[in-house]
Amino acid sequence: MDAAVVMSESSSSSSVGSREQSVRLLPFLPLIYIAWADGELGPDELATVERQLTATPGLDEGDRVALRSWLNPASPPDATELHRLLQRIRRAAQSLGLEERLSLTDLALALAHTEDGVSTPERAGLEQLERTLQISGAEATSALLHPERPAPPTHRFSPVLNVERLTELLDGPQRSVRARLRALVSRPGFRLRHELPRREYRQQVMQWCRVLADEGIGALGMPADLGGSGDMPAFLAAFETLAHHDLSLLVKFGVQFGLFGGSVQQLGTRRHHQQYLARIGTLELAGGFAMTETDHGSNVHDIETVARYDREAGVFILHTPHPGARKDYIGNAACDGQMMTVFAQLEIGDASHGVHAFLVPIRSQDGAALPGVTIEDCGPKVGLNGVDNGRLYFDRVQVARENLLDRFGRVSAEGEYSSPISSPTKRFFTMLGTLVGGRVSVALGALSATKTALDIAVRYAERRRQFGPAGAPETALLDYLTHQRRLLPALAITYALHFALRELSRRYVAALDDAVKRRQVETLAAGLKAYATWHATTTIQTCRECCGGKGYLSVNRFGDLRADTDVFTTFEGDNTVLLQLAARSLLSGFKQQFGDLGLINLARHAASMAMTALSELNPLVIRDTDPEHLRSGDFQSAALRYRAGRLLRSLAARLRRRLDDGEAPEQALVECQDHAVEVAFAHVESFIQEQFEDGVGAVDDAALAQSLARLRSLYALSSIESRRGWYLEKGYLAPGKAEAIRAEVNRLCGEIRPDAETLCRAFSIPDASLGAPIALAR
Amino acid sequence: MDAAVVMSESSSSSSVGSREQSVRLLPFLPLIYIAWADGELGPDELATVERQLTATPGLDEGDRVALRSWLNPASPPDATELHRLLQRIRRAAQSLGLEERLSLTDLALALAHTEDGVSTPERAGLEQLERTLQISGAEATSALLHPERPAPPTHRFSPVLNVERLTELLDGPQRSVRARLRALVSRPGFRLRHELPRREYRQQVMQWCRVLADEGIGALGMPADLGGSGDMPAFLAAFETLAHHDLSLLVKFGVQFGLFGGSVQQLGTRRHHQQYLARIGTLELAGGFAMTETDHGSNVHDIETVARYDREAGVFILHTPHPGARKDYIGNAACDGQMMTVFAQLEIGDASHGVHAFLVPIRSQDGAALPGVTIEDCGPKVGLNGVDNGRLYFDRVQVARENLLDRFGRVSAEGEYSSPISSPTKRFFTMLGTLVGGRVSVALGALSATKTALDIAVRYAERRRQFGPAGAPETALLDYLTHQRRLLPALAITYALHFALRELSRRYVAALDDAVKRRQVETLAAGLKAYATWHATTTIQTCRECCGGKGYLSVNRFGDLRADTDVFTTFEGDNTVLLQLAARSLLSGFKQQFGDLGLINLARHAASMAMTALSELNPLVIRDTDPEHLRSGDFQSAALRYRAGRLLRSLAARLRRRLDDGEAPEQALVECQDHAVEVAFAHVESFIQEQFEDGVGAVDDAALAQSLARLRSLYALSSIESRRGWYLEKGYLAPGKAEAIRAEVNRLCGEIRPDAETLCRAFSIPDASLGAPIALAR
Repeated sequence: MDAAVVMSESSSSSSVGSREQSVRLLPFLPLIYIAWADGELGPDELATVERQLTATPGLDEGDRVALRSWLNPASPPDATELHRLLQRIRRAAQSLGLEERLSLTDLALALAHTEDGVSTPERAGLEQLERTLQISGAEATSALLHPERPAPPTHRFSPVLNVERLTELLDGPQRSVRARLRALVSRPGFRLRHELPRREYRQQVMQWCRVLADEGIGALGMPADLGGSGDMPAFLAAFETLAHHDLSLLVKFGVQFGLFGGSVQQLGTRRHHQQYLARIGTLELAGGFAMTETDHGSNVHDIETVARYDREAGVFILHTPHPGARKDYIGNAACDGQMMTVFAQLEIGDASHGVHAFLVPIRSQDGAALPGVTIEDCGPKVGLNGVDNGRLYFDRVQVARENLLDRFGRVSAEGEYSSPISSPTKRFFTMLGTLVGGRVSVALGALSATKTALDIAVRYAERRRQFGPAGAPETALLDYLTHQRRLLPALAITYALHFALRELSRRYVAALDDAVKRRQVETLAAGLKAYATWHATTTIQTCRECCGGKGYLSVNRFGDLRADTDVFTTFEGDNTVLLQLAARSLLSGFKQQFGDLGLINLARHAASMAMTALSELNPLVIRDTDPEHLRSGDFQSAALRYRAGRLLRSLAARLRRRLDDGEAPEQALVECQDHAVEVAFAHVESFIQEQFEDGVGAVDDAALAQSLARLRSLYALSSIESRRGWYLEKGYLAPGKAEAIRAEVNRLCGEIRPDAETLCRAFSIPDASLGAPIALAR
Repeated sequence: MDAAVVMSESSSSSSVGSREQSVRLLPFLPLIYIAWADGELGPDELATVERQLTATPGLDEGDRVALRSWLNPASPPDATELHRLLQRIRRAAQSLGLEERLSLTDLALALAHTEDGVSTPERAGLEQLERTLQISGAEATSALLHPERPAPPTHRFSPVLNVERLTELLDGPQRSVRARLRALVSRPGFRLRHELPRREYRQQVMQWCRVLADEGIGALGMPADLGGSGDMPAFLAAFETLAHHDLSLLVKFGVQFGLFGGSVQQLGTRRHHQQYLARIGTLELAGGFAMTETDHGSNVHDIETVARYDREAGVFILHTPHPGARKDYIGNAACDGQMMTVFAQLEIGDASHGVHAFLVPIRSQDGAALPGVTIEDCGPKVGLNGVDNGRLYFDRVQVARENLLDRFGRVSAEGEYSSPISSPTKRFFTMLGTLVGGRVSVALGALSATKTALDIAVRYAERRRQFGPAGAPETALLDYLTHQRRLLPALAITYALHFALRELSRRYVAALDDAVKRRQVETLAAGLKAYATWHATTTIQTCRECCGGKGYLSVNRFGDLRADTDVFTTFEGDNTVLLQLAARSLLSGFKQQFGDLGLINLARHAASMAMTALSELNPLVIRDTDPEHLRSGDFQSAALRYRAGRLLRSLAARLRRRLDDGEAPEQALVECQDHAVEVAFAHVESFIQEQFEDGVGAVDDAALAQSLARLRSLYALSSIESRRGWYLEKGYLAPGKAEAIRAEVNRLCGEIRPDAETLCRAFSIPDASLGAPIALAR
């Protein structure tokens, strides 16, 4: 208990020292406190401190005895003594009026000057001690002298870039329809709701859909002479903007106007358009798209619902042969749909003509299922519970001959089948191909949801502070490298996808009536849909985690955003299946069908491709770690293109070897599935990079262009970084260059960090859609 | 229209040929059909076919004219003609009674023999044609001849391993308590519910908790003389087993018995134990753990709730100085809790003694908030909505002096503070350290939820079939490489974690009363909690996606499993923060405190560590691609250990450079955060590998041991594969070896695939907990 007395300021009777001695030892108190407070200095270290301190000139024997006793490992001070010592140091330092942080040495010297007669220790000795013990003096004194953290400055958003111009750039030519949608969802009636019971939620969503229909939004893409606006780009932009809001609304909207309306438009003929489109556009006729069956989802070719032509009656008989062939997960089926586009195997006599689409009424005006139709509710789902998904069974339901959507296959009254496309495989894929709009839409929807999540998480990361250097305000989360690493590359991918999906939309619209172009769009849409929806799933989850406990409250949106978008990776084509389709298409050089027989052509093409020589790697370039080189679009594009090309050729070579060994193509492809998926992903990444680069190149505002160029570099370099195993394996990157890329990604995160909130606000997501209190709090 | 007539079997009048000619051309029909049906042969290819076919001896000029007209690119057959041709081929082939698949050549020859007078084409010529066109004859004929897919065989689970022995191994010594829990949750009253309104869900969960309390499950870990069983291992096993069931129940159970009970047990003294533990164990006294505040989650050190000692009244005054200092997300607070362990800054006079825990009554018997206490409901959450999380504000609430949980800090009636731990930093971390049980529990809970998800997804993947070679039953999803790649490495990690967490639990129990051992357990628990909870989040999502639309139905569990476990990555320590703590601890050689002042020691240790020499890489080993080598525990352990060690040393070196340049340790660490997180992760992965290896080594059943060894290899090799960028950078793997590892992972997936369902069933998750119809359907 020796130390206690000396350490206690008020104590005057002591076995080791008087008050006077205590005063003489004042400069050493901070070091002594630190020696004990952390509780980690070992006996050797305590001895070192003691040796050095007792050597200070001007101390008398009593002082030295006191020092020794204070630093005696066998008799540590107790909690109260330590605490009093701390208070004493603080009080002494306070009288110094210190503002700035000092090192321990400076503090000791300053304390020595507060009272006369105090021995002034040597600066050199104290500094030596700091170094020996690896004590960070500045940090330690800051913790000692500033027990209270200063309050953080209030965060005020002050844009570092011109937000309006950036928004203008992102909005593109569809600015006005976006503005309309933003205003629409900001009406009080569209307020986001949480925890509505499923039944009420569905009613709410249906009612919202009616408002959108009344406003003409649903019919934007329908022909102008049939009640629509004939403006597909506007329809897509409306969909994209709506996707920041309630996602059940988005999907219900998409089912009614995109899938139901779109199938009538794409698979039907003028007669169907005239009869139905206007009523679909106004929601007078609610419907859906009944393709998927319980036993057959991805494999549409083998669905089992049958539509057999009855020549006597001049009708089709739709039938569900067994429960596994029921239509399943059909949006708008459980409650609201009156008519469905139903896909079934067309049979005439003993001939089967494959999958065709039929308009099948399922409900009467009063909402009851029509005779022969059984409707079930799919019940609660992970998300999208505002959408009434249901199951449909048909028990020999008669459908008028005219209800065959007959653009690609007709049946005469006499039962003669005819089609403008002779090849059944080509016909099947042409019919499916018309539905590519669904994939484009899902990709756009996923992107918008990702933007919403990032906007919330980035704004929160600017405001939320946690930990930080002692004596300073806590640090904003976005100032932490780990936090930047989690959010900023995701933001860069999101921007990159924005430009890529804009180009996809453009090509989709341009290819609406061009089957050859559409084939390319299909491959692109398959890959981008998979990429964008997985990006959404991952990023929304990351954003949730970046907002901690607050992110877990429903009101802050991440739960719904994630649960609702989750199925995006599955519907309109399972991502893994889509990537394989895309890979097949790439293998066959975009010219071929994919499908059972398409493999023949694929194999043929693969064989030729495998013979293409690999380009040489330049030994100087693979070692070039110059930041200018790493940030150049040339390097980034070349790297991503190289990967896409080389993976494709090596896949072709692997397939070729297997085919030469007599393996069936289907089996060969299964064995190379992981490789095929990589091929498709690599092509998507390279395409995105090109589009981002083109998009940035077209920006004339220098500050914006610079900021976007950084984002583009972050997109490309973090993509390359995440594939660096492959690049290193192939010798495209030397190890030092891979490390340089990692460092460059970190640097880019730091440079983009000040722009982050601006970049998010430029998405111009209305407060009503953002919803989250953590994002809207000032 | 020339082709039509010949192709049509029944047609007899034709400009190009008679029925007789048609018969002579029979062998060529399949090839002609394929040429058109796929719709992809170009003019050159059609010309090649025509040239070769017309060269067949025995054809007359009329036959040749017919062949030419059938293959005329300018006049393709129409859909009906093509279809009739197909039917004709089928009928002809049917009469052959073919069972097996033939090549196109074989089919042509067989057709030639069905009728006399038919020219027999030369085998060599046909084979040459197949090769030139890269047609896969077997596949094509299969598609032609088998329009209907055979029904798949019914999947019946037939174990390839001894499931019972595997379950016994996994259950370990706590077999009986696990069996008890499995029986308990299988009672009808414990049936899983979906879509319960929040209020009713909470009531249900509370009622379930009461049953568990009545059964003595909650008190398993409490002292035997105070109503418990004094059996912490049994408590952990019960928790782990319960985690297959409703996760709100798990968390409510954990809050009451683990956090509330645990805090009284660990932070209180005998007096508190006697007064409260029995009542907590029976749920007579419901409570919770109020540490987190709105403004301070991870940074507990800076919480702002104040507990000021009032010497006159002999009480503590608890106060919430501003709304940001309210207690937030507190389980059991919104509805049921009567008392809370509240963490607050202890102040006596003008002295602040840091964070301490107080037992604070918050509700009267009738459920009303006590005077001065304001309680709010946190409202709907992403998941765990059966748990009543709430917010607490204290307005100068008086708490008896005895309610300070005073194991590590006491206040006498006179207001004298004393503590068995002098150093405030050490005291703070010692208090927090007692709560490591929460992290151990969360890791166990995450692991169980992962097992549930995998069990469902693997069983479904065995039953679900989609696509497949023509003419064959569709292929089970689990036979696809991509599907194996998604599920089986995750299963391997899950098994690996099982052994690692068993060891963590063992060490945790062993360290309950040993502060030094507990420090090591804390670091381990931090890393494993982060690893296990992220593994859960990722794997449950993957499982959902692997089950497609069915996975999106609530009834199949993935939604709840994911939403409920989501916050596991945040609570009981944010994963990113935990990994940084673990890294600090590793840097300081496990001996040191972490915390503000702990950095001093960290820096000291880092400096010494950086001088350790790196072990040499053996040029033979880095190129060794022998599967035996790759599958050896020696290689796998060495690789993971190497990464952990080298990352740690390079982090230390980076820190040292920064410290030498005069940077503050805190700042230096922020700049190396990404590196620090990698260090911690690498150590966790290496630890898991060691534990898995030890666990497998102790298995005496040869078949089981072999199966588990494959899983261990899959765990290790897929971990190495996913880090191969790093290994290649450091020269630990030559490119060829990295590629060999990828191939080995694929092979292992194939080998483990037949065991997959057995490995999942061995988790012995009761049907009542599994719940999902897609898993329980036969």
